[in-house]
Amino acid sequence: MEYAAPQMRRDPLTGDWIPMATARMNRPITAGAGATAKGNPLAARKPGDPYQDGEVPDTDYDVVVFENRFPSMVQVPGVDINKISYVDGNPLWEERPAAGRCEVICFDPDENGLPADLSVKRLRTVVEAWAFRTAELSTIDGIEQVFPFENHGEEIGVSLAHPHGQIYAYPFIAPKLETELQHTQAYFEKTGGNLLKDLMNAELEAKERVVMRNHSWVAYVPAAARWPLEVHVAPVRDVLTLDQLNDQERWDLAQMYSTLLKRGNRFFDKGDGKGMDLPYISAWHQAPVRDARRENYRLNLQFFSFRRAANKIKYLAGSESGMAAWVSDTTPELIANRFHELGPIDISED
Amino acid sequence: MEYAAPQMRRDPLTGDWIPMATARMNRPITAGAGATAKGNPLAARKPGDPYQDGEVPDTDYDVVVFENRFPSMVQVPGVDINKISYVDGNPLWEERPAAGRCEVICFDPDENGLPADLSVKRLRTVVEAWAFRTAELSTIDGIEQVFPFENHGEEIGVSLAHPHGQIYAYPFIAPKLETELQHTQAYFEKTGGNLLKDLMNAELEAKERVVMRNHSWVAYVPAAARWPLEVHVAPVRDVLTLDQLNDQERWDLAQMYSTLLKRGNRFFDKGDGKGMDLPYISAWHQAPVRDARRENYRLNLQFFSFRRAANKIKYLAGSESGMAAWVSDTTPELIANRFHELGPIDISED
Repeated sequence: MEYAAPQMRRDPLTGDWIPMATARMNRPITAGAGATAKGNPLAARKPGDPYQDGEVPDTDYDVVVFENRFPSMVQVPGVDINKISYVDGNPLWEERPAAGRCEVICFDPDENGLPADLSVKRLRTVVEAWAFRTAELSTIDGIEQVFPFENHGEEIGVSLAHPHGQIYAYPFIAPKLETELQHTQAYFEKTGGNLLKDLMNAELEAKERVVMRNHSWVAYVPAAARWPLEVHVAPVRDVLTLDQLNDQERWDLAQMYSTLLKRGNRFFDKGDGKGMDLPYISAWHQAPVRDARRENYRLNLQFFSFRRAANKIKYLAGSESGMAAWVSDTTPELIANRFHELGPIDISED
Repeated sequence: MEYAAPQMRRDPLTGDWIPMATARMNRPITAGAGATAKGNPLAARKPGDPYQDGEVPDTDYDVVVFENRFPSMVQVPGVDINKISYVDGNPLWEERPAAGRCEVICFDPDENGLPADLSVKRLRTVVEAWAFRTAELSTIDGIEQVFPFENHGEEIGVSLAHPHGQIYAYPFIAPKLETELQHTQAYFEKTGGNLLKDLMNAELEAKERVVMRNHSWVAYVPAAARWPLEVHVAPVRDVLTLDQLNDQERWDLAQMYSTLLKRGNRFFDKGDGKGMDLPYISAWHQAPVRDARRENYRLNLQFFSFRRAANKIKYLAGSESGMAAWVSDTTPELIANRFHELGPIDISED
């Protein structure tokens, strides 16, 4: 496969690096009204499969990870990843190679399954893949942050229906993590403590927003939740990145993630008691790869949904998209109360 | 009308204030599949109108501004807007009244018009309303930023089809403006210059991304644009806020905004040469009300669309929603080239 070397530019007004991913404009779409692809590039290849050009090498698999075929960031051999140039020769506009990496992680060879229906054993393998790729991608020159995430649902524009996640290895610290690092570092300098740990303990003490616990993990609706459904999942032990998780913690995470997805699908209801396939984004916040502030961060999963009722979506309009000022349509306590209706908090014996 | 006093909470991990707007959950929807309202609350009231409860006082109007009936921020008489309390008594979780103001601005009594079809004269009145409300809202205790914006299109969840905009008066500096202020201030301290002015001049010098000019304004695709269609509009003269615009600048703005909306509607095409009603967000970035860094900022309009092709929307998925890391599907030069096809750059004699 041949790649053009994608570039990214620094927005002088915000400091954000913006990869310019022109190659992505023609990526296949198999879900929703805009479907254009003839087959499923994530499926295990079978004889006679219309998608002969599929990206998965084997005829069957458990969980598989490969590089995105339409990457917005890629390291091209021979390209100096540190070379800064200027758009139109003006130093206000820095440009450099978008020398990151975009990976796809297939959760299941079955294209019709839902992530919520995967077995805990299968999800344990997904956790293994997250941990393995975090370790591997962190060794690559120029990678500053490894971000495993999952987009689920046509409502958020997922172009492939097949159960899968993604891993972005950014050649910069993403703006949201940068903001969090500024706050965790300032908190450390002021108190000597770890903000993420103290927030988890504060939620445990307050109790009302804790939605699930097992031996290794605590799931809670954060006291200042911004999404109509938002749950943060924190490890009980001090852990910086997914690859630092021990065997017990990996099993416990698979179990909690399974329960979270199942309850998420019952959170909203059309009135028939059947729940609905929840569109969600699942975002792993890990300590950055090199930045010295990493020691005062702590691994956490931020799971959230755009759905705000069975028939309503929260859109990111002027305040959110234009000013990054979120307005919540609900309260963290209402979200937690709904989770409490869906099952017990202590799931350690499930 | 009776209001509960909405609260906002500070997210300890980001520093963002999140208004909790439970009252908004039942607001009327007249556009799209989820339409629930029996009438149009923004229409001029006529005898026999089904929406007897409409919000517009007169039977006809030119442009009208009123307070949002389902506000996420409001100042309630008797409530101390500066009173900080703690969620569950924990100082990690600050809470205070969401003592801002949410206004709606109706552009036209005709509910079926499009903003792009409004006359320049009518848009001149809209500019007048933006300027007037900026001045008025800036005098209110506790208001830190006045944000006039426009959400257009069902694709971004606009719940009322009637041509209208909104004005949020935030009791905080919104995260995006805060980030910009940090960068304009650092630039001033380093160079003595105004970053926004220098960026406008750099775009004029580079030429290729300038899409429109008249006597008082320059419109360009910023060199690090993040949206599939993005145009920034900057005043030629140093101006901090909309109320500082003189008469000529107000007329020239109305003219440029009219041309921008018309060309925006021709930007994407289904192949029939007719263009399409562009969904867009139009966001006024003004100097903050009180913050000392205001002098080194400069008024600018950031106009952008989620649409990335005639049949495609850009969704804010994991990277954007979870990490605030935008990935562009195009390049600023491609956006500008398309605008160049749609009409001349110099529109001062139109």
